Amino acid sequence: MTLARTATTFSPPVMEARRWLEGVDFTDRPLINVSQAAPVDPPPLAMREAMAKMIVDVDDTHLYGPVLGLPELRAQVAAQWSNSYGGTITPENVAITSGCNQAFTAAISTLCTDGDEVILPVPYYFNHRMWLDMAGVKTIPLNPANSLIPNAADAADLITDKTRAIVLVTPNNPGGVEYPAETVLAFAALARSKGIALIIDETYRDFDSRTGAPHPLFQDPDWDDTLIQLYSFSKAYRLTGHRVGAMVASVARLSEVEKFLDTVTICPNQLGQHAALWGMKHLGDWLAGERLEILDRRAAIQEQFPRLGATGWELQGCGAYFAYMKHPFDMASDALARDLVQKVGVLTLPGTMFMPDGQGKQHLRVAFANVDRAGITALFDRLVAYTAP
Amino acid sequence: MTLARTATTFSPPVMEARRWLEGVDFTDRPLINVSQAAPVDPPPLAMREAMAKMIVDVDDTHLYGPVLGLPELRAQVAAQWSNSYGGTITPENVAITSGCNQAFTAAISTLCTDGDEVILPVPYYFNHRMWLDMAGVKTIPLNPANSLIPNAADAADLITDKTRAIVLVTPNNPGGVEYPAETVLAFAALARSKGIALIIDETYRDFDSRTGAPHPLFQDPDWDDTLIQLYSFSKAYRLTGHRVGAMVASVARLSEVEKFLDTVTICPNQLGQHAALWGMKHLGDWLAGERLEILDRRAAIQEQFPRLGATGWELQGCGAYFAYMKHPFDMASDALARDLVQKVGVLTLPGTMFMPDGQGKQHLRVAFANVDRAGITALFDRLVAYTAP
Repeated sequence: MTLARTATTFSPPVMEARRWLEGVDFTDRPLINVSQAAPVDPPPLAMREAMAKMIVDVDDTHLYGPVLGLPELRAQVAAQWSNSYGGTITPENVAITSGCNQAFTAAISTLCTDGDEVILPVPYYFNHRMWLDMAGVKTIPLNPANSLIPNAADAADLITDKTRAIVLVTPNNPGGVEYPAETVLAFAALARSKGIALIIDETYRDFDSRTGAPHPLFQDPDWDDTLIQLYSFSKAYRLTGHRVGAMVASVARLSEVEKFLDTVTICPNQLGQHAALWGMKHLGDWLAGERLEILDRRAAIQEQFPRLGATGWELQGCGAYFAYMKHPFDMASDALARDLVQKVGVLTLPGTMFMPDGQGKQHLRVAFANVDRAGITALFDRLVAYTAP
Repeated sequence: MTLARTATTFSPPVMEARRWLEGVDFTDRPLINVSQAAPVDPPPLAMREAMAKMIVDVDDTHLYGPVLGLPELRAQVAAQWSNSYGGTITPENVAITSGCNQAFTAAISTLCTDGDEVILPVPYYFNHRMWLDMAGVKTIPLNPANSLIPNAADAADLITDKTRAIVLVTPNNPGGVEYPAETVLAFAALARSKGIALIIDETYRDFDSRTGAPHPLFQDPDWDDTLIQLYSFSKAYRLTGHRVGAMVASVARLSEVEKFLDTVTICPNQLGQHAALWGMKHLGDWLAGERLEILDRRAAIQEQFPRLGATGWELQGCGAYFAYMKHPFDMASDALARDLVQKVGVLTLPGTMFMPDGQGKQHLRVAFANVDRAGITALFDRLVAYTAP
């Protein structure tokens, strides 16, 4: 008997990591949790009050809506994107999804079937790998040469007649690197030349250190023959609990996406969509401030990192919500991550969770966005104490 | 090149039916929309006010929660279910999902892979069929003999070494029939004897005309070796726009379900879960009243139906939210449904949407729960006018 879909993949890393906390006493030394990429505070009060008013006054926040999302939100995304990316994106190019993970699963379902292949640069976002496993799609890992930035020429060598897509995440989870525009362009050109899709997940776009559009892909009037862009409202507006993401793709693809979304969730949650729309209209300045705060935390990581000295630690990537660190210990990262919980009260995710079996043993992902400067100093106090006790 | 997942199935019926309304003028004769099974009113004011307060005061309504759902809601479901079904259901047997459709997709993903088979009594719920298509699972239709109640003995003949589950929906969508306890028991015995799962979707349970538990399956202390129950909070508490459903199954299965849910949506929307919990605690009497109202609308359908006289119409099922009607016209139901929109301003769903290709041409589903007694009288005014003009 063959394996059922879920038996082909591993357990959710974030939930597994939470289980490492069981039975550990954090009374005297509160946990520093840098495991999940999520804001820990709710949206600003003005937004919560606006949502509360909608809940009471706007009936359709409680009722089914269109499968592909609230028309006003689709239109708002199209308008803002057209402006910020300098291209033409219509409301019919936008689908709203129940979070960005769902956007990925839907995109893959329009591209692939059993036995197909998708190229993921490593380290990858684990939920991408999990969906490919469950969808019967083979993950083809693309190893960057000397940095965390993948190379389109290397990807070209991996393409077969079963390849359906290349997936880029920029700014990258877990690597924390921002892909240069020329890298993204080279992948888009490769994908188009091979007749495959380029999926670009820009969940952390709003925290990019660069100003202006991070790539010019939408300026190509034919962008939709190749490009599928994914986005999340969760990080920008602190809406993780409301599950609102987006996909920008061709109109034809979205009519296929509609089948998947209808079957899996019928429609995205309506209040979350109204909240995202309110955020896009009213929180531009606030979001700019959020970005500066995240960039300051990133700077704090870079400033603190040298405290680890010549112990063998390396900061290989730092940006978006993430620092990706090489550790010096003769211990696999999954064991190390558990040991860090026990010994110094720090919860990270090990590199093993972002790599094919047997790889990632020398790396940790630190999701620093939740932690302020004082917390980042405390984090390095503990890493220093652990490394050179 | 083989087809991508979404290319193996059809477009969402409810969205297709909405497109039939385009360009039709309803100014003088407002549309009677009996196409979608959904409340058209928001939840009661007390619940909306409670939700509004949570949005402002309870931070975790905005943040990620556990993949398998809010612990308090899982515990509440376990306690209410144990009491109402007279069995032992623990919080660890309950997963909260982003609607009941997602519960089905997750259940199938723990059971099946490409080439497996699942038995669906016909007419089936179209999203079940769509997911099986996209999952590469073959739908084996089970034709009821003389009524809309399927027979376990007939199902036994369809089981092969590729069969992984039988799916029952009771009260039934689209058929409107309530499966007798002995029918459900016979299917459970068959499933257990063959080592396959019985998935029982009880989305419309709260509107069953029978009092007490509709079946005794949970009284079997070993229920979890066979049974997977699905439920929706959407209809009971008018939360369709918040996407909250549930699955009750073995603890081992739910650890597989966790992989799927994490990958597709990370967690169910948090406010919806808090609202469902609030509803379960405070809206028992209100829900009892809702049930009586739906049962009264069902009675109205039964009272009005004879007005169609000896024209060949038959009311084959009537219950939950649905009337399933055989029509007398020499026209396939999909063409008829469109003609009813044009000629008399009534939007139903055709039987073709609930059956394998080429079947269902003689049936219409009328989702009457949205329509009050006056509306049901108006509906039959129009059906009479159409039939015997």
